[in-house]
Amino acid sequence: MTSAWFDKHRERLDAAVAACASREYYSAFDESPSPRVYGESAAAEGKAAFEAWLGTDFPLATPGSDGTVATERSPYGFDLAVSYPRARDTDALIRAGLSGMKAWRDAGPDARAGVCIEILDRLHARVFELANAVQHTSGQAFVMAFQAGGAHALDRALEAIAYAWVEMTRIPRTALWEKPGRGEPLRMEKTFTVVPRGVALVIGCNTFPTWNSWPGLFASLVTGNAVVVKPHPSAVLPLAITVQVCREVLAEAGFDADLVNLAAEEPADKLASSLALRPEVKLIDFTGGNAFGDWLEKNATQATVFTEKAGVNTVVLDSTSDFKAMCFNLAFSFALYTGQMCTAPQNVYLPADGIETDDGTKTPAEVAAGIGAAFEKLLGDDAKAVELLGGVVNEGVLTRLDAAGADGARGEVLVASRTVTHPSYADATVRTPAIVGLTAADADVYEAECFGPVAYLISTSGTDESIDLFRTTVQQHGAMTAAVYSTSEDVVEQMRDSALDAGVALSENLLGGVFVNQSAAFSDFHGTGANPAANASYTDGAYVASRFRVVQSRRHV
Amino acid sequence: MTSAWFDKHRERLDAAVAACASREYYSAFDESPSPRVYGESAAAEGKAAFEAWLGTDFPLATPGSDGTVATERSPYGFDLAVSYPRARDTDALIRAGLSGMKAWRDAGPDARAGVCIEILDRLHARVFELANAVQHTSGQAFVMAFQAGGAHALDRALEAIAYAWVEMTRIPRTALWEKPGRGEPLRMEKTFTVVPRGVALVIGCNTFPTWNSWPGLFASLVTGNAVVVKPHPSAVLPLAITVQVCREVLAEAGFDADLVNLAAEEPADKLASSLALRPEVKLIDFTGGNAFGDWLEKNATQATVFTEKAGVNTVVLDSTSDFKAMCFNLAFSFALYTGQMCTAPQNVYLPADGIETDDGTKTPAEVAAGIGAAFEKLLGDDAKAVELLGGVVNEGVLTRLDAAGADGARGEVLVASRTVTHPSYADATVRTPAIVGLTAADADVYEAECFGPVAYLISTSGTDESIDLFRTTVQQHGAMTAAVYSTSEDVVEQMRDSALDAGVALSENLLGGVFVNQSAAFSDFHGTGANPAANASYTDGAYVASRFRVVQSRRHV
Repeated sequence: MTSAWFDKHRERLDAAVAACASREYYSAFDESPSPRVYGESAAAEGKAAFEAWLGTDFPLATPGSDGTVATERSPYGFDLAVSYPRARDTDALIRAGLSGMKAWRDAGPDARAGVCIEILDRLHARVFELANAVQHTSGQAFVMAFQAGGAHALDRALEAIAYAWVEMTRIPRTALWEKPGRGEPLRMEKTFTVVPRGVALVIGCNTFPTWNSWPGLFASLVTGNAVVVKPHPSAVLPLAITVQVCREVLAEAGFDADLVNLAAEEPADKLASSLALRPEVKLIDFTGGNAFGDWLEKNATQATVFTEKAGVNTVVLDSTSDFKAMCFNLAFSFALYTGQMCTAPQNVYLPADGIETDDGTKTPAEVAAGIGAAFEKLLGDDAKAVELLGGVVNEGVLTRLDAAGADGARGEVLVASRTVTHPSYADATVRTPAIVGLTAADADVYEAECFGPVAYLISTSGTDESIDLFRTTVQQHGAMTAAVYSTSEDVVEQMRDSALDAGVALSENLLGGVFVNQSAAFSDFHGTGANPAANASYTDGAYVASRFRVVQSRRHV
Repeated sequence: MTSAWFDKHRERLDAAVAACASREYYSAFDESPSPRVYGESAAAEGKAAFEAWLGTDFPLATPGSDGTVATERSPYGFDLAVSYPRARDTDALIRAGLSGMKAWRDAGPDARAGVCIEILDRLHARVFELANAVQHTSGQAFVMAFQAGGAHALDRALEAIAYAWVEMTRIPRTALWEKPGRGEPLRMEKTFTVVPRGVALVIGCNTFPTWNSWPGLFASLVTGNAVVVKPHPSAVLPLAITVQVCREVLAEAGFDADLVNLAAEEPADKLASSLALRPEVKLIDFTGGNAFGDWLEKNATQATVFTEKAGVNTVVLDSTSDFKAMCFNLAFSFALYTGQMCTAPQNVYLPADGIETDDGTKTPAEVAAGIGAAFEKLLGDDAKAVELLGGVVNEGVLTRLDAAGADGARGEVLVASRTVTHPSYADATVRTPAIVGLTAADADVYEAECFGPVAYLISTSGTDESIDLFRTTVQQHGAMTAAVYSTSEDVVEQMRDSALDAGVALSENLLGGVFVNQSAAFSDFHGTGANPAANASYTDGAYVASRFRVVQSRRHV
């Protein structure tokens, strides 16, 4: 069955491998939730499947669990009340994972890739159910949840599998080594076997439970490791479904379902930190805040740790050929999912004297007004606004938003946040972004990440200072993304150079349908690992190469 | 010049890349020191070049140095009295390294590969001088110093460069991304740039100053990093020559010579640990003892750390078709460089009842006698013996050897060590190996590495126990190599499986001209990273992939 699955998925794997090498456009999973693509009934069936979980015990048997936890509340205003086994016994989790690894190792890279892509296919068959689960844990609007949490997450997972498969199959299974000598050559037959590292731990986040967890999960699984998935307590369901599908496919292929387990918890259980220090845990993938990410990097030294943390994403405004399009593009990036993307821009540096545009010089206040006008178009209508904004993921975001606009807070509120009423969910928490004016002197404010819908327009003495601040802020505090608007080739060239120094990806003059916070699987690297915001990237060789080792044997022939 | 060098070396790079992929035999640097290969005068000129360094100030300007150190004494019985700048100011070393990195980064992967292979060519031109320097710091006999310290080390360096170059050039420099849309596709041009991690630290060892330092040095350098080389105080000269050549070629190509610096020290200076914790140091390559290697892995968490430490290399004897050849092969492996190779076998498990051979059943005492007889042939004549044994590298080895044979020490000395008189160097310290008989119960003795010419013949209840002990000992204490002798396919299969579990490379029934302690560049992986003896391997993708990052920029077209 596993070799049949490899054959079945081979064409798609080859296409993914080719795209990773060319970095040209490729997608294996259609991002349009349209009935024309997925069929007339798919959306309704997926919603019903999601709703059927509400108030139930999710059917997963986590080894060593004790009782259940139900920790999820939709940002749209209702409790999910899905109960999951409460993982309590790290010994039992680790033991269960280790027990199936030998057969999984011996299956080899092709068979494992076949199983993993089959899992993606089965997840794809449940993509509307997953999209609903992502929507009502992260707060993403439905279409975004379908795309980022479904189709794009599947693409990112396939990308990780493709990279890992290439890495595992770079060396032959056997080789004949013949060293010339005086008489007969020395001849040896050598066998090379990919062996796993141990148990892998995947620590999920609240905002992108699938998109940020699947690359690590599948990169570790396809390389032969067992995986313990520790979801964020507020976003369990998307990963519970994931684990359910992994276990189903593994068992169907004759492998131990316990190769993948869900470790749900009460937040106070601190399961992630106790699992992370287990000597058997050799791989850790983490998405979340800097404090715990830094702790993992410093303390889980028995493991290879991949982190995506936080930073201050930066835009440098110098000049533009299309002021309206620039304002619209920035406004969209601020508003998309209420600025709760790790890639959303936060710091916008621009000369206090203003920037040259096709519509004359624009001062910082006028730029703010331009962005405000774009917000009006994008978010003026509540029913439309909620489809872009989604819901506020948690209380922390709301607190930071309120503080940014409060009396006594540093800076001037140039565009105020507005409360939006959701037409379908009366108790949903929905806000538009705030734009706060600062100056270069307010470093203590803008050098920290203010996760959520707050952007700073920071007045500088000119573009040179803007670029300097960009470089030093990112070097010290990290960033997932950066952007520049300039009609000057010199300025763009300076920004490219500074982005290399700062180790951050740069988007230049985005005026159309691409936004700085979006990264496309197979082409855009997400994170670089070259600045403090993340020590890894989706997906490069470094993301997969240390998830396995090669063990050889040799003999004379 | 750099592009000319890339062109000049392209064919060799391609051949190395192909060999890494096929794992078939390849060597770029001839291992025979014969005049027919290297010319009539090469050996004498190289020796004279080495001797000319004795008693002099080595001409290197280490940034922030203060005074000089002269710390080397040949195991053949004389002080080298070469003085090197004493590195004192880590700030200055780091600053000097960083200053040239931008131009080195901007040169790109091809130019850097050209420079690095040119360095190898220049080192090759000084291979006899290097061989003398390796001989008189490590104690290796001349031919071994020429091969392991010269030709094979160059091959391992080329292998690391080839792997890193493949990894850097897996992604294109630019790509055109076109996402189909309703109307015109979204079109973006993307640029991908390899950027370095920071300053790399290479910490050399006493026994293989070049072979164990060059892979990390060149892997870090070719990926754009600056490198600080911290040699073992007893083996500075081979790395001083290395750094001299690196600097000469870098400067000739128009790059900053300070991209590579030597950091020589008095042992009490503890330079390695202070450099290792510098935030700018992002890569560390270490070869040496477990204590400091483990400390680096636990404490230098700002860096990616590659360690080769120590373990207990294991042989399982079950049966053989050629008792004499087996004894000879084992004896050679014990004797080569006085057992001072990290790959030399230490623990030999065999049934107390003996093993089946073509010469009847052989008890442990008879196996010891067989090895003893092989020693007699290999080492009976002092003049021949020294060419295999070389010299004892340091006092620690001698102390352990003496303790292993002492009254009151555990076990029975089955073959005693013998003092050999060197025909040319009266003050050389030369010893033959000791074979000590133990039983499976003596775990506290054989579970620790006894680095040097001591091997344990460990009597077990049978091959099943031997294999169990092999697996558990290696899992807990690590190993660089393992070997099995058996005429039973079942036993060999069990050993292969256990070697995968233990994460160690296995040599099967070596009865000819290949020895368990030898690993061939481009074909054999040295170390696996899958057991406690080493967290890395020469050379796999994991060894190179995290030495750089990829930073992209993108724009509409």
